[in-house]
Amino acid sequence: MNGADSLCDTLLANDVDVCFANPGTSEMHFVAALDRKPRMRCVLGLFEGVVTGAADGYARMADKPAATLLHLGPGLGNGLANLHNARRARVPMINIVGDHATYHLQYDAPLTSDIEALAGPMSHWVRRTPDAQSVSADAAEAVRVACRAPGQVATLILPADAAWTDLPSGTPAPVRARVDPPGKTSAESISAAARAIRSGQATVLLLGGAALRGRALAAAGRIAHATGVRLVAETSNRRVERGRTRPPVARLPYPVDLALDSLKDAKHLLLAGSRAPIAFFAYPGKPSKLAPEDCAILTLAAPDQDMDHALEWLADELGIAASAPQLAAPAPSADIPVSGRLTGAAVNMVLASRLPEHAIVCDESITQGREFPVHSAASAPHDWLQLTGGAIGIGLPLATGAAVACPDRKVITLQADGSGMYTVQALWTQARENLDCLTIILANRSYATLYGEMKNVGVADPGRNARRMLDLHEPPIDWVGLSRSLGVEAVRADTVEDFIRCLQAGLARKGPFLIEALI
Amino acid sequence: MNGADSLCDTLLANDVDVCFANPGTSEMHFVAALDRKPRMRCVLGLFEGVVTGAADGYARMADKPAATLLHLGPGLGNGLANLHNARRARVPMINIVGDHATYHLQYDAPLTSDIEALAGPMSHWVRRTPDAQSVSADAAEAVRVACRAPGQVATLILPADAAWTDLPSGTPAPVRARVDPPGKTSAESISAAARAIRSGQATVLLLGGAALRGRALAAAGRIAHATGVRLVAETSNRRVERGRTRPPVARLPYPVDLALDSLKDAKHLLLAGSRAPIAFFAYPGKPSKLAPEDCAILTLAAPDQDMDHALEWLADELGIAASAPQLAAPAPSADIPVSGRLTGAAVNMVLASRLPEHAIVCDESITQGREFPVHSAASAPHDWLQLTGGAIGIGLPLATGAAVACPDRKVITLQADGSGMYTVQALWTQARENLDCLTIILANRSYATLYGEMKNVGVADPGRNARRMLDLHEPPIDWVGLSRSLGVEAVRADTVEDFIRCLQAGLARKGPFLIEALI
Repeated sequence: MNGADSLCDTLLANDVDVCFANPGTSEMHFVAALDRKPRMRCVLGLFEGVVTGAADGYARMADKPAATLLHLGPGLGNGLANLHNARRARVPMINIVGDHATYHLQYDAPLTSDIEALAGPMSHWVRRTPDAQSVSADAAEAVRVACRAPGQVATLILPADAAWTDLPSGTPAPVRARVDPPGKTSAESISAAARAIRSGQATVLLLGGAALRGRALAAAGRIAHATGVRLVAETSNRRVERGRTRPPVARLPYPVDLALDSLKDAKHLLLAGSRAPIAFFAYPGKPSKLAPEDCAILTLAAPDQDMDHALEWLADELGIAASAPQLAAPAPSADIPVSGRLTGAAVNMVLASRLPEHAIVCDESITQGREFPVHSAASAPHDWLQLTGGAIGIGLPLATGAAVACPDRKVITLQADGSGMYTVQALWTQARENLDCLTIILANRSYATLYGEMKNVGVADPGRNARRMLDLHEPPIDWVGLSRSLGVEAVRADTVEDFIRCLQAGLARKGPFLIEALI
Repeated sequence: MNGADSLCDTLLANDVDVCFANPGTSEMHFVAALDRKPRMRCVLGLFEGVVTGAADGYARMADKPAATLLHLGPGLGNGLANLHNARRARVPMINIVGDHATYHLQYDAPLTSDIEALAGPMSHWVRRTPDAQSVSADAAEAVRVACRAPGQVATLILPADAAWTDLPSGTPAPVRARVDPPGKTSAESISAAARAIRSGQATVLLLGGAALRGRALAAAGRIAHATGVRLVAETSNRRVERGRTRPPVARLPYPVDLALDSLKDAKHLLLAGSRAPIAFFAYPGKPSKLAPEDCAILTLAAPDQDMDHALEWLADELGIAASAPQLAAPAPSADIPVSGRLTGAAVNMVLASRLPEHAIVCDESITQGREFPVHSAASAPHDWLQLTGGAIGIGLPLATGAAVACPDRKVITLQADGSGMYTVQALWTQARENLDCLTIILANRSYATLYGEMKNVGVADPGRNARRMLDLHEPPIDWVGLSRSLGVEAVRADTVEDFIRCLQAGLARKGPFLIEALI
């Protein structure tokens, strides 16, 4: 048994049994160790952004961390954008980053780089394990940190010689992590929140993280029904439980003017698993803070606290019975298009009307999918996973990881074409693992969001240089051919009739499938 | 005129007139400014690894920096692997990384991250420009640093408000950078090198960087012919001038045993633009240093010094006339296959025999192309560009940038399939810009190099978990379909006859083309 075996054993002893990986030479002993641990499910990504994004999707749905296996600084670098999203999603994740043997570092071989510096900004915790004997304790600490509520990104650097060095016989069993339970909110916070609600002034309950699921969400729904408090979700969320059996929660709009408008009357803002709302970007002459100056902001429960406990306590404090009715989902839309030219709106409405029970919707639709949550509030119960950190290229990997976590659920990805190209390699992993992933490419053949942003900076009619940065139609990307080339069957739709037919076909089959929706 | 205009004007005033870009919201003012500067050629990459790799290829061939435009920390993160390669290649490059407005950073909006920390490991210089007035001086300093011999990676962080703030009228003209000329080697180094050569003991002249081109290489060739000194190139090089009119230089092998063997008799190792040779990776029981213990290592000229000057001086010191003959290229191979099953060796030999004059060969062939330089020593004169930092995913971007720099030369990429998948988006840029890039995919459908590395760690027969990390054949990637989907015409060859026909077709046309060589 060597350090690499010890690492695998420790992960397995702590119930980390999926490893998304793209290994290289410095990780070969770890790969060899995986061969001796058939319980560890190894999922290859053809690019590290797929690996880290899949680990994020897995964690969101499995409620426990996966491991990733990355190759030195550049391999980590390729995974950083989706680590950034994972850090913002506050999911548990354990990155194993291989490095040169300890004694080799001094020579500054070509692949050498400062892994700690690269890992730091996108990790909550970074440690370099010094030797084979330390591996188990360090790996257990990574698990402990990763699982600390609400979830953290832990990065463990594994020098090649720490992996390959044999451990003496009599080495103790793998270390088990002791995970701390989430903290609890205080009586003061609960009574302050109750006072705000009872004041009768316009109050918004801003939900984030675990407040958008399960008992916490149900309690929020009862509070909203009983008191008229408005439920709002943060703009970007890790996982929202939605659909006709759940209380509807509007999300805070992304465009800054709409967001300001949405909060303009609020006198009290109660934060439950959320942060005080901030503009995604700054714009000349517009504020960074989205809540009005005279709105009192109060933390009901911080992101690392127990949301079920906090919201049920608040309901109790307000005298709302556990059996009280919760805010009801709206009636489903009656005007679902059945024919005509395909548009983003039509895709959203058709999909919302036909969403299968317990689907997982991965949403990187950027501009074209903004209306999907509006139309799907009364859909079949589903989970909705969003881009949390603004680093595009997460949709396809996220779906990949979610499908590994939940093999019995349909995973549907609303994917903008520009963002989809970032980590398109994920389709291959969906094919290899035969994951039940239905991808809908919203192909508008542009970075449409940036056309909006150009207007925001005062350019109504972009010129040649600008257009060549924003348009993707020259040449057009053939998503059907692209998908098939990576092993995922695909079809194209440019009318609503077509799209309905394609969607039916995609929903009827099990396994990966892609629809290019030309909108 | 605002800060963004000032940045563009400063780049153009310093002859930086190509910008590889993937912008986002925080860069919109820069994009708007580019619209007002038609002299700046903007090339869009659909992923930032394409952007930075293309800037590397451009710099290698243009001998001057391009700018890149990247979107905050995650956009930079996506470009880091190829920045790592660029740093190892020692090419000039100027990264413009947009960030939030200065006053917005305090709110930790979703896309916020520590850009300085991320940029540091892969940059020689990082600066955050504080305001619009400072932009021109900071950009000029970035140019100065980037152009310092042999070339450096300079990263300038541009806050959105530094870009959008108007400059007062009467703002001075753009700052011009004062680039320092390269240093010169010393008389002591020259006479020590000459003494080593005259000793009659086995001497290796290890060439790197600018020593592999032009007058420096010619002088090395004369020295080798006159004295019997052995010319060896570093394992991975930025740009080597090769072919029948240039002195042949064998490269130090990548596999550690072969590298040790290659140097085992050397008593003197003279470094010209190179570093003391080090194993790419460490292996149990094998040394990190590749030169024998009793080999004296002497720096003839450091990478930042003038190689033409150093090698011509050494030739002069040795009494070798400028008109003396140089080491001659070997006779071309006589046994070029014409039929049969296609192999990596056949691809290399056929290509070498038909290489057009002044082709640029971008080589990310990993295992399958190792013999190409052997077979092409007597080919038509060409430039050979390698993966310098070991971070795979540079071949297609490198070719893209080289073709932008040299529109009149054929760019041929030897691309391993596994590495090619990392930055496959580059094909789209080749199509959009109609670049004269011929890509040969060496499709062995595995990470073949890792099978070799598994053997090195003692695993002769990898099991299921390991094989699923190393094999790419399940499902097979259809490179022809993939290439066409991104706008690049493609064909497949699995026999030598096929490959010759495809190669002829590819060489006859102008514009992007791809051959999937099934080997």
